[in-house]
Amino acid sequence: MDKWIAVDWGTSFFRAYLIKDEKVLCAAKTNDGMKFVQNNNFEETLVKSIEPWLNNKYKIEVLASGMIGSKQGWIEAPYQKTPCNLNNIEFISPFVRDDRFSVKIFSGIAQSNKPDVMRGEETQIAGFLYDNQNFNGSICLPGTHSKWVQIENGNIINFKTFMTGELFEIISKNSILIHTVTSKKIQKNELIKAVNEIFIKPEIFGNALFQLRADDLINSRGSEIYKSKLSGYLLGLELLGSMEFWEKKDIVLIGNADLVKMYEYVLQKKVNSIKSFLSEKMVLKGLKNFKNKCL
Amino acid sequence: MDKWIAVDWGTSFFRAYLIKDEKVLCAAKTNDGMKFVQNNNFEETLVKSIEPWLNNKYKIEVLASGMIGSKQGWIEAPYQKTPCNLNNIEFISPFVRDDRFSVKIFSGIAQSNKPDVMRGEETQIAGFLYDNQNFNGSICLPGTHSKWVQIENGNIINFKTFMTGELFEIISKNSILIHTVTSKKIQKNELIKAVNEIFIKPEIFGNALFQLRADDLINSRGSEIYKSKLSGYLLGLELLGSMEFWEKKDIVLIGNADLVKMYEYVLQKKVNSIKSFLSEKMVLKGLKNFKNKCL
Repeated sequence: MDKWIAVDWGTSFFRAYLIKDEKVLCAAKTNDGMKFVQNNNFEETLVKSIEPWLNNKYKIEVLASGMIGSKQGWIEAPYQKTPCNLNNIEFISPFVRDDRFSVKIFSGIAQSNKPDVMRGEETQIAGFLYDNQNFNGSICLPGTHSKWVQIENGNIINFKTFMTGELFEIISKNSILIHTVTSKKIQKNELIKAVNEIFIKPEIFGNALFQLRADDLINSRGSEIYKSKLSGYLLGLELLGSMEFWEKKDIVLIGNADLVKMYEYVLQKKVNSIKSFLSEKMVLKGLKNFKNKCL
Repeated sequence: MDKWIAVDWGTSFFRAYLIKDEKVLCAAKTNDGMKFVQNNNFEETLVKSIEPWLNNKYKIEVLASGMIGSKQGWIEAPYQKTPCNLNNIEFISPFVRDDRFSVKIFSGIAQSNKPDVMRGEETQIAGFLYDNQNFNGSICLPGTHSKWVQIENGNIINFKTFMTGELFEIISKNSILIHTVTSKKIQKNELIKAVNEIFIKPEIFGNALFQLRADDLINSRGSEIYKSKLSGYLLGLELLGSMEFWEKKDIVLIGNADLVKMYEYVLQKKVNSIKSFLSEKMVLKGLKNFKNKCL
């Protein structure tokens, strides 16, 4: 049958898509992330979302990637090592009681030196390469754990992960800055100023964070400024630490719309060219790419 | 009367001491930090701890400092501005129903440019200056919000706060590193290596954090190494950002024993001289110093 199911199953989210001829017929998005699944009930959790798409006439194939293939997930899909060709990505199939579907979970990628890992991002990268087979350059996937990835001839050569998004999250929610960075908006000029401050003196980071609180206590300039600065300090530190991936290069951004915009804004004058793509689309193309390769 | 009560009242702790002739007769230490006091019951919370020391014959004086004097505390003791002479520190007295004691709460210190604040640390500094009136140099108070303070002729000239301890806390407890940095021990050589890595390239910070997790997944070298490295990255970033306070200078450390040891270990070859003192002792001396000045 020409229908199949694509699943993007991360630590804290679950997304499934029923696909025919490269078109998404239906989608199911839940909060059933890997870490919320109790007692290894992965099969039940999956069925809960895809049940309407199953039938007793033929077996449908489920292709999944993300943290679901980690040690804490459904079944461990061992890491493949860099340099890694995305045309040869491996998978593992967990035992499934329900005979209406089978499951393939694709591997993540590990780098020994310097130690680094990814699970899920390789699928997005494969999605981009599906339409851009001859791309040589850098791909950035901003997010909780932002990744900068060097691509050559369809291979992941080398990559670097930064805890940028997670630091932003825990500093905003768990530190003394909780009441200082409440705004939902970002001021572009304050963002850029903060990036530039960090570019000049990255070591001010810990002091710059406390200054946001102190400035709020003394001058109360409004949380939009403080949130923009916090974002800028964290983004600045990441960009300074990943410069070999983007300086005067052609880069590709894959992420959610808001984050991608922020990176575009800061990087636009510093790089050769930027092309941006949405994660969700790249995941689907990536799983399609993997599907074609493992037929 | 020659007895008085010293109170060190912070965000998350409460410590009171009954003092006579510079000797501590009794101490009460509880978790009744400012942030845990409900409905402004500051007087009741204080009495709960000092009740046994009170009598109906004469009024005893309570001298307090720390976050209890902040906007969220008992009564706001307005900040004094830098440059600030610790011999002229101001206080404010909250209204007290109980006629067995009176309360003085001492001011914190604020700096306009660059914005910074302290509440409680000025008392520890006054404690050190009590026996070292002619000290000119830098004082470091490591902790949740580490402070580096420049002292000249009994004045606080300039200071810089780093969120080092708080970042350590939230990264250890709230990030993906939670299972990686469980050890209670630190390996000195790994600590120093991590400090040096940051000294060379501070911008690796966000990547270095993720590498701890990746290295744990790939090589499982034991959490002692990862905790030492995390400590080193954070300490390194602080030291690089505070270099003007310590490089080839005479410095004084005031803090808890473990933290002070770590700073001594890392700084010993980089500074002229180090003298170390315990926070608790300095707070008592500092309040005694303030007491003498406001008679």
